[in-house]
Amino acid sequence: MAGEEVVLLDFWSSSYAMRVKVALAEKGVEYVCQPQNLVNKSSLLLEMNPVHKKIPVLIHNGKPICESLVILEYIDKAWPELCPLLPKDPYQRSQARFWADFIDKKIYDGAKVLWKAKGEEQEKIKKEYIENLKILEGVLKNEKFFGGDTFGYIDVAFIPITSWFYTLETFGNFSIEANCPKIVAWAKRCKERHSVSNSLPDSDEVYNFALDIKKALGL
Amino acid sequence: MAGEEVVLLDFWSSSYAMRVKVALAEKGVEYVCQPQNLVNKSSLLLEMNPVHKKIPVLIHNGKPICESLVILEYIDKAWPELCPLLPKDPYQRSQARFWADFIDKKIYDGAKVLWKAKGEEQEKIKKEYIENLKILEGVLKNEKFFGGDTFGYIDVAFIPITSWFYTLETFGNFSIEANCPKIVAWAKRCKERHSVSNSLPDSDEVYNFALDIKKALGL
Repeated sequence: MAGEEVVLLDFWSSSYAMRVKVALAEKGVEYVCQPQNLVNKSSLLLEMNPVHKKIPVLIHNGKPICESLVILEYIDKAWPELCPLLPKDPYQRSQARFWADFIDKKIYDGAKVLWKAKGEEQEKIKKEYIENLKILEGVLKNEKFFGGDTFGYIDVAFIPITSWFYTLETFGNFSIEANCPKIVAWAKRCKERHSVSNSLPDSDEVYNFALDIKKALGL
Repeated sequence: MAGEEVVLLDFWSSSYAMRVKVALAEKGVEYVCQPQNLVNKSSLLLEMNPVHKKIPVLIHNGKPICESLVILEYIDKAWPELCPLLPKDPYQRSQARFWADFIDKKIYDGAKVLWKAKGEEQEKIKKEYIENLKILEGVLKNEKFFGGDTFGYIDVAFIPITSWFYTLETFGNFSIEANCPKIVAWAKRCKERHSVSNSLPDSDEVYNFALDIKKALGL
């Protein structure tokens, strides 16, 4: 649509923000990316997301949308022409939402505690994390994408966190590929898409960032 | 629709299950309610929700849908004729989803920790809980419902937890009405609807149930 103003309040290493970038790229939506300082938060960020004060925020013609899965649903509805993310069938839609919620609670939240944990606690978290990845591998089966032949909602929700896999593996001393080869092969297929390769940072950059955070936190 | 089979795997004091009951009642959908034993879980529950092993599960013509907000979205799409829950406008939809997510994370999850906490920890949780209720009061403004003149998605998502307010107030030694009179007045208006009054248990029953749980847990 002409004359539209689309702005993303972003932070480069946030998997949540990457979801939005992948979706906008799939939809062919042009936008202005505004990187945010998450220590000294801008008045724009505080005004646009007064409740959670977090990125990502999508600002469409001046109106803010917050929370990454809410933003994905919005993008799918506001720009329905290209690359439909959610299936049309109500049951299939419900399943896509169920798995995106699972990915949020188990894979994203799990990653946050995994890379900061130590010793026995880390072993326990790691075991659960692998179990949850295996559950997702069971959902993928032998399909190309979680959406079957087409890249869809679950793929967009899941793929960004794979940019943190190297960091998780290094800090956690384990191999995701040895446990979940189909997930790693799926991630490689996703990264052949420009929408994904242009939106996800290098694993090394994420690792160095995480290393700096760990040092700063004294972990 | 004729020949449909709708089953709800339920537990009477679960605010999540109440959401589904309110939505089905608003939509005029007939269903069979199957109360579940949450200590010795039935093979049906484990088969229908193998991932989380939790109620509520809605089984529509043999196919299970899990997670209460996912179920609400499904109900709205599968039975679109009566009482549309989500607004049609993409931006309004996104706002409804944002607040339902806020209610899940802050008001439902907050209630779970509040009624079991003690002393200083409880005071801290209580303060945050009231702040979050005040944020919702700000969203309600002076409207009849969160959906404006019509009862909608945010109302369905929020109203069940009010059946736990008396328990929270008694264990937490505070008054929600004194802090958030508009929320309490809104809850009364909601309870004038049969869909709500028939789906929510009495506050006393919930309190006695919580008291038994507290004793069993040795709190």
